[in-house]
Amino acid sequence: MGRTYEIVPERYWTVFGRNEPAARAASGDTITLNTRDAWGFDEQNQPLPDPEWSKGNEPDVLRCNPLIGPIYVEGTEPGDTLAVRIEDIVLNRPSAWSALHARFGSLTGEGLNRSMLLNEPLELVVYNWRLDLERMTGTLSLDKSSVREVTIPLDPFIGSIGVAPRFGRVESSLVPGEYGGNMDTPETRKGATIFLPVSATGAYLYLGDIHAAQGDGEMCGAALETTAKVTIGLEVIKKNIDWPRLKDRDFIMTVGSTRPLEDAIGIAAFELVKWLVDEYGFDKWEAWQVISQVASIRIGNICDPNYTAVLKYPKKYLDKH
Amino acid sequence: MGRTYEIVPERYWTVFGRNEPAARAASGDTITLNTRDAWGFDEQNQPLPDPEWSKGNEPDVLRCNPLIGPIYVEGTEPGDTLAVRIEDIVLNRPSAWSALHARFGSLTGEGLNRSMLLNEPLELVVYNWRLDLERMTGTLSLDKSSVREVTIPLDPFIGSIGVAPRFGRVESSLVPGEYGGNMDTPETRKGATIFLPVSATGAYLYLGDIHAAQGDGEMCGAALETTAKVTIGLEVIKKNIDWPRLKDRDFIMTVGSTRPLEDAIGIAAFELVKWLVDEYGFDKWEAWQVISQVASIRIGNICDPNYTAVLKYPKKYLDKH
Amino acid sequence: MGRTYEIVPERYWTVFGRNEPAARAASGDTITLNTRDAWGFDEQNQPLPDPEWSKGNEPDVLRCNPLIGPIYVEGTEPGDTLAVRIEDIVLNRPSAWSALHARFGSLTGEGLNRSMLLNEPLELVVYNWRLDLERMTGTLSLDKSSVREVTIPLDPFIGSIGVAPRFGRVESSLVPGEYGGNMDTPETRKGATIFLPVSATGAYLYLGDIHAAQGDGEMCGAALETTAKVTIGLEVIKKNIDWPRLKDRDFIMTVGSTRPLEDAIGIAAFELVKWLVDEYGFDKWEAWQVISQVASIRIGNICDPNYTAVLKYPKKYLDKH
Amino acid sequence: MGRTYEIVPERYWTVFGRNEPAARAASGDTITLNTRDAWGFDEQNQPLPDPEWSKGNEPDVLRCNPLIGPIYVEGTEPGDTLAVRIEDIVLNRPSAWSALHARFGSLTGEGLNRSMLLNEPLELVVYNWRLDLERMTGTLSLDKSSVREVTIPLDPFIGSIGVAPRFGRVESSLVPGEYGGNMDTPETRKGATIFLPVSATGAYLYLGDIHAAQGDGEMCGAALETTAKVTIGLEVIKKNIDWPRLKDRDFIMTVGSTRPLEDAIGIAAFELVKWLVDEYGFDKWEAWQVISQVASIRIGNICDPNYTAVLKYPKKYLDKH
Repeated sequence: MGRTYEIVPERYWTVFGRNEPAARAASGDTITLNTRDAWGFDEQNQPLPDPEWSKGNEPDVLRCNPLIGPIYVEGTEPGDTLAVRIEDIVLNRPSAWSALHARFGSLTGEGLNRSMLLNEPLELVVYNWRLDLERMTGTLSLDKSSVREVTIPLDPFIGSIGVAPRFGRVESSLVPGEYGGNMDTPETRKGATIFLPVSATGAYLYLGDIHAAQGDGEMCGAALETTAKVTIGLEVIKKNIDWPRLKDRDFIMTVGSTRPLEDAIGIAAFELVKWLVDEYGFDKWEAWQVISQVASIRIGNICDPNYTAVLKYPKKYLDKH
Repeated sequence: MGRTYEIVPERYWTVFGRNEPAARAASGDTITLNTRDAWGFDEQNQPLPDPEWSKGNEPDVLRCNPLIGPIYVEGTEPGDTLAVRIEDIVLNRPSAWSALHARFGSLTGEGLNRSMLLNEPLELVVYNWRLDLERMTGTLSLDKSSVREVTIPLDPFIGSIGVAPRFGRVESSLVPGEYGGNMDTPETRKGATIFLPVSATGAYLYLGDIHAAQGDGEMCGAALETTAKVTIGLEVIKKNIDWPRLKDRDFIMTVGSTRPLEDAIGIAAFELVKWLVDEYGFDKWEAWQVISQVASIRIGNICDPNYTAVLKYPKKYLDKH
Repeated sequence: MGRTYEIVPERYWTVFGRNEPAARAASGDTITLNTRDAWGFDEQNQPLPDPEWSKGNEPDVLRCNPLIGPIYVEGTEPGDTLAVRIEDIVLNRPSAWSALHARFGSLTGEGLNRSMLLNEPLELVVYNWRLDLERMTGTLSLDKSSVREVTIPLDPFIGSIGVAPRFGRVESSLVPGEYGGNMDTPETRKGATIFLPVSATGAYLYLGDIHAAQGDGEMCGAALETTAKVTIGLEVIKKNIDWPRLKDRDFIMTVGSTRPLEDAIGIAAFELVKWLVDEYGFDKWEAWQVISQVASIRIGNICDPNYTAVLKYPKKYLDKH
Repeated sequence: MGRTYEIVPERYWTVFGRNEPAARAASGDTITLNTRDAWGFDEQNQPLPDPEWSKGNEPDVLRCNPLIGPIYVEGTEPGDTLAVRIEDIVLNRPSAWSALHARFGSLTGEGLNRSMLLNEPLELVVYNWRLDLERMTGTLSLDKSSVREVTIPLDPFIGSIGVAPRFGRVESSLVPGEYGGNMDTPETRKGATIFLPVSATGAYLYLGDIHAAQGDGEMCGAALETTAKVTIGLEVIKKNIDWPRLKDRDFIMTVGSTRPLEDAIGIAAFELVKWLVDEYGFDKWEAWQVISQVASIRIGNICDPNYTAVLKYPKKYLDKH
C-alpha cells in the first residue's frame, strides 16, 4: 500500500502556498527528502547559489528556511486532513549553527518588519555546534565563559512543516499558522504524526528547517540549525480540523500559533476541548476540567511572527487512543 | 542551628504586605503550618466563619486564597534574599475541589475587575476530586462523558508564597509579582528552595493555597484545591535579586509574572542571563545562546491577574551547583 | 499628465497579491471605481452571485471585503513607493449595514480561526443605517432603547486599500499589514494620500470596503458598510518605505498593524522617528521627544486579525511639508 | 454648601492606599493644592530633601510622582463613588522638564522591574521646556535638528489622581488601575469631573503629577512635567462603579488600565455598555452598535506598568446628559 521514493528538489521555497509542485504523491506513500538548513546550506555545507547570506552578509530573515515542496497529494480536497507520519529524521552533517540576530529573537527587539525599538540593534554572532552523530550529542565551545564547553543530547525535529494556507494565503516560511508552518516545536520529532488542515485541492505540503536540538521558545531566534534525511508517510483523512494536531506514543496534542502567546494557548485549548468532545466522548465542561488538571504546555517558539504553543494531553486519560 | 516549631494562625490574609506578624522567625528556623484551601476550608472541610462562599454564594475571587502569615524574619533588610526550603508538603484531607468559574479562567472571559466580554457569563460548577493519600492519586467521576472516571498522580505544591512587595504595595493573594505570590507553579514542590527578593525589613512571608495536582496554566482557574501540613526552612541571604528564583535537585529556575505571557517569559529569561553571568561565570551572549538551546519553559498560570512563567536551566550545564 | 478613466471589474478579490490584473495604469493616472460593500452588495443592493451570505447564511468573514483590482502600475519596482491620492469618495447608496457577529469583534470573543472562548457564541444581528446623502448623515432606529434614533455625520473612507505583500504573501482582504490592507482607519478619507511600500513589480493595487462612518477601533466588527464611487490618483515614487504612510492637509502619519495593539503603535512610532530623521532634518532622540509631546494616536481597528494604529504628527511642527 | 480651603502637605506619597490622612474633607468641599512635579521639584524648582534624583542620579522611577494626600472624605463607604470636579489647574512655574529614560518608555525596552531586553540600556537625557504662562505655550530648543525650536499650545491636566485601591492594595503612584492612579490622560483637565470607585471608608484621595502638555501615549515616558495650583470640588455619590468614569462638556467617558492595550480598551468598552444600559436607557446590543460607530479612543499612556485607554462617547447621542 503506497509507494516509497525520494524527492530531489530542483528549487526551494520560502513561502507556503499553491506553487508548482515538486512532486505528486498519494495517500499511503512513503517519501524521503534531504533538507537544507535554515540559511540554505546542505549537508556538505554548500550554500544555495544566490542569497545574500552566501556572500557573508546579514541574512534576510524573511528569506530563511528554504523548504522542499510543495508535494501535491492526490485525492485531497479542502476540508480534508493530511496526516504526515514522521518515520525518521537522520542527521547527516557533523555541524549545526545557531546565531544571535540583530532585530530577531525574543529579548533583542522584534524583527521581521516589526522593528519597534530605538535602541541600537545588535550585531550578528554565529555559533558553531559540533555534532557527534553516533552519540547524538552537540557540543559548543564557549570562549568567554568559565564553563568552557557545553555538550547536550540531540533531539532532532522538523522546524517547519505545513500545507497551503486557507484562502490562497501564502506566508513566509518563517511564519506558523493554522496551516502548520514554522512552528519550531520539538514535538514534530520521529515517531509523531502531524495532522494538517487541507485548504487547497492537493494540500501542497512543504517541509524543512531541521533542528538538531532546541530549548523551549527558540528564544535567541535560532536552534541547532542543520540538515537531515527525512522520511515521511502520507495519509489523507476525510475529516475536518481547524488547526494542526499531533499524536505520538504518549500524547494527543493541539497547536495554536498567534500573538500574544496566551492566545496561542487559547487556540490550542479550544481545539483540544473540541477534539475530546468530538472523538473521545467527553462532555465539554468535563473535558475542560480534566484538561486543566492533566495537560502540559510546550512553548514552541516565541521569536517568529506568530508564537506557537502545543497543548499535550496524555493518552492514558482517554478510553481509546 | 535554628528552632523547629509550628505556627497556628489566629487569622488569615488575602493580601501580601506589612501586616501584623503572625510570628517572628530567624534565619535557620524550621516551621510547620497547616494551610486552608483556596476558599478557606480546613482539613476537616470546615469553612472560615464569615465569607460569602461559606453561605453557598459564588465566591468573590479576590477574597480567595486565605494565607498564613506574615512571618516576620528577624535580620532581613530590603535588598536581601529570603530563601525558603520546602521541606515537606503532607496532604491531610481526602478531597480536593476544583471549579468552572464565571468570569475567571483562561477561556471563559477574564475576571477580576477585568470583565471584557459581552457574552453571558457562565455558571459556577464545582468538581470534587477524591484523594487517595496513600497511593497519592486523585480521582474525578465524570457524569456526562464516556470516560467515567479519571485517576491522576498527585504532585502537591504551594500555589501561593510570597513576601511584602516593593514600595509598600499590597496585592490580592490571587496576584503574583516580583514578590512571588500566587504563581501557581508546580515547581514550588517538596525539595525545592524558593528565593524571594526582600523589600521590607522583616520580609513578611505568607503562604497557602496548596494544590494537590495541576496542569500547566491552571487553565480553568482552579487546580485540585486542598489542605496540607507544610514544613519550611528559612535562610536569610545577603544578596540582591529582582524576581523570584528557584533551585531543586536538577534545575536552577527564574520566575516572571506579568501580561502578556511572552513578557513573563522575557522577565524570566533576562533574570536567568543575569544569574548565569553574575554567579556562574558566563559571558552574557554565550549564556543567552546556551539558554536558548537547553532551557525549558513551565507555564505556571494563565488565569491570574498576572501570568507566571518559569524558565528552567539544567544544573548539569553549570560548573558548580 | 496622466489619463483619466474608470475601471469596471469583471471579478472581485478577497486577497491581496499578484493576481491577474484588472487594469494596467501608469504614474499620473486618475482612476474611478465603483466599489461593493463588505458582503459584496452593490449600490442597488444586488449581491454577488455566489457567496453564502447571498443566501441568508452567516457570512464567512474570511470571504468578506470583495475588492476591486489588482491595478498593475507600470514602472513600479520592489523598493518603490506607490502614492495613492484619494481624490473623491462619493457615496451612492442610501443605506449602510452594520452587524453584531458571532465570533468576530472586540468584546465577543475573537474569530477568524482564532476561536478561543468556551462561552456560547452570539447570533448575528444586522443593523440597517439609513443614509441621507445630501445632508451627509446616517440614521439608525433603535427598537429596544429609550433613545429611539441616532443620527450621526458621515465621514466616508476606504476601509481596505493595499498592494501585493512582500515575498509573494497573499492575505485575506480582512487582514492589514505592511502592504496596507484592511486598516479600517478613517484617515484614508478624501484629501489624504496614502504611501504604500511596493514589493512586486507592478505593485498590484486593490481597494474596496467603503465605510460611511465608523468609531475608533471598529469595535463590534463592522462600520457603516456601504458603496461609493471612488476616484484615486496614482504616483510612483522612487524611494523605499517599510510600512504605509499618510499625508493630509494637517498631518503626516505612519501606520502599524500587528498584535498586541501596543506593538502596532510601536511600529508606527519607529517609522515616524525614521521619517522625521530621514526627510525632515530631525535628530533621532529629539524627534522622539517632540513626537511624544505632539503626536496623536488613532486606533483604526481592534477587530481584524491584525490591529491597526495610526500615529499623527502635525505638519506645523515641521520646517517643510 | 461646602467649605473652601487649601491643603498644605507635610509629606508626599508615592503610593495609593490607606495612609495617614493629610486632611479630612466632606462632600461639597472645594480644595486647593500646590503640586510638585514628577521628580518632586516645586514651583521654585526646589527639590524634595532626600531622593536620589536631587543628587543628580538617575531617578528611581518607582519613587517618582510624589502625590498630595490622602484626603479622607467623610461619609464615603466602599461601594460609593467619589466625584472630583477639576475646577482649575493653574500652572505656576515657567519651566517643565521631559526626559528620555533608560529602561522606561515605549520604544526603549520596558522598565519598572520588567527589564526584558538584552540590548544596552540608554542614557538619561533631560529636555527643558520653557513655558509661557500668559500665551499658554511651551517651547523646546532643538540642538541637533534642522527644526531649531518647537512651540506647542499647553493643555494642562492631572497625570495622577486616585483613591485607595480595592482590598487594601497600595500601588506605586506610577501605576494606574481600577482606583484611577497614574492614568496620564489629557481628559483629566479643567472642566472635567472624574468619578472614582470608593473601596475604603474615607476614600483616601491623592493627586499630583501635573502635565503642561502631552502627546497620546506619553510614549517616551515623560510629558511636560511641571507644577500647578489645582482646585478640586468633591462630591460623594451613593452608587457603585467598577472603574473610573469621566464627564466633561461634550463627552461621557470610561477608563480601563491594564495590559495588553486592547484589554484596556476592552474594559472601557464593557463599562461604557454597562453605563449606557444602566443610566441612559439603552439596550445592551444597541448600545454596543452605537458605541462602535460614534465613540473615540484616547490612549492615555503606553509607558506605565498598566496602559490606559479612555473611551469617549459624545453626549449628543444621549437623551439626557
